[in-house]
Amino acid sequence: MEVLHMFGSEEQKKKWLEPLLRGEIRSCFCMTEPDVASSDAANMECSMRRDKDSYIINGRKWWTSGAGNPLCRVAIVMCRSGSEEVLSRHSQHSMILVPMDTPGVKLIRPITVFGQDDAIHGGHFEVHFEDVRVPSSNIILGEGRGFEIAQGRLGPGRLHHCMRAVGVAELALELLCRRAASRSTFGKKLYQHEVVAHWIADCRLLIEQTRLLTLCAAKALDTLGSRNARKQIAMIKVAAARMACKVVDCAIQVYGGAGVSGDFPLAQMYSYVRTLRIADGPDEVHLSTIAYLELRDQLKKAQAKL
Amino acid sequence: MEVLHMFGSEEQKKKWLEPLLRGEIRSCFCMTEPDVASSDAANMECSMRRDKDSYIINGRKWWTSGAGNPLCRVAIVMCRSGSEEVLSRHSQHSMILVPMDTPGVKLIRPITVFGQDDAIHGGHFEVHFEDVRVPSSNIILGEGRGFEIAQGRLGPGRLHHCMRAVGVAELALELLCRRAASRSTFGKKLYQHEVVAHWIADCRLLIEQTRLLTLCAAKALDTLGSRNARKQIAMIKVAAARMACKVVDCAIQVYGGAGVSGDFPLAQMYSYVRTLRIADGPDEVHLSTIAYLELRDQLKKAQAKL
Amino acid sequence: MEVLHMFGSEEQKKKWLEPLLRGEIRSCFCMTEPDVASSDAANMECSMRRDKDSYIINGRKWWTSGAGNPLCRVAIVMCRSGSEEVLSRHSQHSMILVPMDTPGVKLIRPITVFGQDDAIHGGHFEVHFEDVRVPSSNIILGEGRGFEIAQGRLGPGRLHHCMRAVGVAELALELLCRRAASRSTFGKKLYQHEVVAHWIADCRLLIEQTRLLTLCAAKALDTLGSRNARKQIAMIKVAAARMACKVVDCAIQVYGGAGVSGDFPLAQMYSYVRTLRIADGPDEVHLSTIAYLELRDQLKKAQAKL
Amino acid sequence: MEVLHMFGSEEQKKKWLEPLLRGEIRSCFCMTEPDVASSDAANMECSMRRDKDSYIINGRKWWTSGAGNPLCRVAIVMCRSGSEEVLSRHSQHSMILVPMDTPGVKLIRPITVFGQDDAIHGGHFEVHFEDVRVPSSNIILGEGRGFEIAQGRLGPGRLHHCMRAVGVAELALELLCRRAASRSTFGKKLYQHEVVAHWIADCRLLIEQTRLLTLCAAKALDTLGSRNARKQIAMIKVAAARMACKVVDCAIQVYGGAGVSGDFPLAQMYSYVRTLRIADGPDEVHLSTIAYLELRDQLKKAQAKL
Repeated sequence: MEVLHMFGSEEQKKKWLEPLLRGEIRSCFCMTEPDVASSDAANMECSMRRDKDSYIINGRKWWTSGAGNPLCRVAIVMCRSGSEEVLSRHSQHSMILVPMDTPGVKLIRPITVFGQDDAIHGGHFEVHFEDVRVPSSNIILGEGRGFEIAQGRLGPGRLHHCMRAVGVAELALELLCRRAASRSTFGKKLYQHEVVAHWIADCRLLIEQTRLLTLCAAKALDTLGSRNARKQIAMIKVAAARMACKVVDCAIQVYGGAGVSGDFPLAQMYSYVRTLRIADGPDEVHLSTIAYLELRDQLKKAQAKL
Repeated sequence: MEVLHMFGSEEQKKKWLEPLLRGEIRSCFCMTEPDVASSDAANMECSMRRDKDSYIINGRKWWTSGAGNPLCRVAIVMCRSGSEEVLSRHSQHSMILVPMDTPGVKLIRPITVFGQDDAIHGGHFEVHFEDVRVPSSNIILGEGRGFEIAQGRLGPGRLHHCMRAVGVAELALELLCRRAASRSTFGKKLYQHEVVAHWIADCRLLIEQTRLLTLCAAKALDTLGSRNARKQIAMIKVAAARMACKVVDCAIQVYGGAGVSGDFPLAQMYSYVRTLRIADGPDEVHLSTIAYLELRDQLKKAQAKL
Repeated sequence: MEVLHMFGSEEQKKKWLEPLLRGEIRSCFCMTEPDVASSDAANMECSMRRDKDSYIINGRKWWTSGAGNPLCRVAIVMCRSGSEEVLSRHSQHSMILVPMDTPGVKLIRPITVFGQDDAIHGGHFEVHFEDVRVPSSNIILGEGRGFEIAQGRLGPGRLHHCMRAVGVAELALELLCRRAASRSTFGKKLYQHEVVAHWIADCRLLIEQTRLLTLCAAKALDTLGSRNARKQIAMIKVAAARMACKVVDCAIQVYGGAGVSGDFPLAQMYSYVRTLRIADGPDEVHLSTIAYLELRDQLKKAQAKL
Repeated sequence: MEVLHMFGSEEQKKKWLEPLLRGEIRSCFCMTEPDVASSDAANMECSMRRDKDSYIINGRKWWTSGAGNPLCRVAIVMCRSGSEEVLSRHSQHSMILVPMDTPGVKLIRPITVFGQDDAIHGGHFEVHFEDVRVPSSNIILGEGRGFEIAQGRLGPGRLHHCMRAVGVAELALELLCRRAASRSTFGKKLYQHEVVAHWIADCRLLIEQTRLLTLCAAKALDTLGSRNARKQIAMIKVAAARMACKVVDCAIQVYGGAGVSGDFPLAQMYSYVRTLRIADGPDEVHLSTIAYLELRDQLKKAQAKL
């Protein structure tokens, strides 16, 4: 929705965004590919080529969340539209709207996350495109502008993940405390075991630091824009995913066998927060971004001192 | 099987151990309970009381692995047989053989581990015992000797887990290296990214240290016996579970989305190794044991110097 | 100074605070004792007993920073003034002003920190008090109110340490980046080694999270007061010390041999930040405080839901 | 001594090794340079050039341990003897014997480690060589064979460091336990605080794993030789330094202020073990070596399966 809201033409908005906003239909987003390491987005190989007034799309995508939802009517697909000989690294890709009922669009299978299929949210699908033909007017913003759109979308998208991670961690800590206050071993409540108490303290500390950095990044995004908030966004993306994994893992340990079972939401929460260290770019890509921007900032500061 | 082999009467061996060894039947072990923190085994509440020539068992167990296997014919059940007013903390429990077809034995449901039910191995079941009556000759070793049996069994049992953990970690590292050698991002193979290379190094280091400690603990168990090898067993239990979690997690990160999916065995391996930090006593119980024994050893050493 | 400003009588302020503010004299603070674990302040044994219009002080203190400064004229000494049979745990201690030239006040020796004596700041001294007699009017706020004063002083004092820790870490990261940009190994600049780049990223991330939590704690201290900001103060005390140790350690590793030498300030910075994990209460005491307050807050939240 | 024993000519052994073995003189080793990152040994710039029957040496070295010992009579100096245009990366350096009283050899200053100068062992010196002329027969093994010698020496040298690290850690843990058993806070002995108990357990676990890996590496060195034991040596170098830093740091935390003071050996022990993460190649260089060898081994294993 954000992509259409920010970058769609009037016609595209009328056709897809309005019913989306009315809740009549749903969309999905086809980015990641099974055959290449998508942490480097320039690797993507799903191709589109012009054929008169149409584009013809061929390729394989996966982790297309929500594609299995019965209301899902349209996909936004990231495709390679230009060759690397001619174009710069970040001008070779485009985004295009593909109605789900176009011939050649195939839902291959749902991908599981730690064995769970998230069917209730429409699953995470492998989707193949075989000679899929769509009108050229379906392209968003124009050929070669895929990265530009991705950058515009990913900032807010990553931040939403971080906010959810803080929320998940808060719930996990609440559950942890509740269990620690109700179970006993070796003659005392779990929370009276100093090691468990210090986990509670560490979790609270991690959550607070992450919450503050999330707010700070959100402010930067709102006031400085996606591009200038890149460092903040990259920082919170890494921090929130790590923090949530740590907090949920602590809660699981306090619950023991119940923690990994389906009787409490912790195992499922872990599946979600663990994917955050991978989704929208793995931690490592963001750490490299932070380092690059930090070195640039330090250099500026050093030059300003001269 | 080990319990019967080590502690069973001739009659018990004949009836149950022999068909077990011939592979005709299977057994399961009922220890952990949903209503108490089983990390402190003295908490267990499933009760048995004598009624003439029988014992009558009442209580709830879970994480009974293999109970769903169609060949599973008998359960060994840990029960509270004496009151805490009269008996010392470790003489209140007994182990008893309960044929699965005894009236009142109820398989309630399989428990999932991170959403997976391990059905192929017979699952992990919640089992209820409602006025289950078995002959008094089914008791193993005698009333109040449950802890003694548990200690005898848990040493080797824990070591087996550690050996499996080393094997799982070896496989995970092999998969990690294979992926790192076949995928590229930002113009180089994944293994050429220094951070990934150092993960490989750290994983190999962790595995080697754990393998050596496992061998050392196995030697201690064989030569010194379960009781005198307690410190070694506790150490390797903690080290192996931690190591395997770390190695499998690294491998998942290198695989990205594929790592958490069902396309590779890593997500399932993680479920297994994560439970090792809980099963047969959580890490924290073993750390307390190591600390106690270390302080005792240091004291002995200090006194020897005088 | 803060103690006198907040809790001193008019006469005490006139005599000591005013020359302190004019920079004519200095003071020192005698809290920690060599013979007891001072992380539990109620352990302190240095005694004071009333003798007509005087108090007589006996005991041993150490880590009295600045006692060796030639301008240091007065010590504030925490003493046990009441017995534990009669009084509650936190009413047994008092603070009293002791002029440094009072007979029986003995500077025993400077204590080193990782081999350095900090002489330029007046060192950290072991100070003994042998039948030291001071007028009873030297007591601050009254008998048994030592803890009350300590609580009032320690909040701001801990926060100052945290602010310094953030500053030290910023300098360490600047030095790290400078070195990473000027040295080469294996054909590339240090910062081009991905592992070093990720250290830079992690350090920046840690610093930002800590800076935000420091600001948040400062705000809480100013608006809610020392008592109600306890959780925030405890959190930042732990977070800042840990963060600064990590950042300075990374910088040392990037500098190699130069990092541990006296040619760069990093080794000295490490000595300072490592003591922060101990000074004004070790991390572990603060973690226990956070856990206690978190459990209380969770309980309130749970009750509010009912 | 090892260098002369393994690689010296008969004449060199007679002149230097014999008095060394008799304890009449000492030697020092000039490797690391202040102006380049010595983690990449090929960076070294101290030059030697042939002039008839002599070599003339120019350059700056530091961290020359023992150079300040009054008995120190000879230095073994690693020099660049060939140009990088002509020779392979590892054939450009040579080692040569330089009597300390040769004109042009200048002891500039002792380098401190965390503020300590280790004077009792002869300190760690910066040594400059200004047109230092020595007979060409002083070269060890021949021109361009410096790396070969270094490899032969560094294996055993690194292992000795690891053995010392295990010994230091054992002492630190003994001190930790002694303090934990003698001090009380909040009404119980320090070791009764679960967090401290778990530190004791973690330290014992780390020491045992490292001891076993050290023995394993020593066996590999003895039976397979320096070259084939490279992976084992690299692993133990990293593991031992990390382990010892962790154990000594825990002990410091248990001792509180006393831990960083000069009253106990812990602060000095920390200085030593922290340099182990840098000396003879920083951890990062060894991790890269392990990764390289692991990938090679995995590849071999994969090919063997075909």
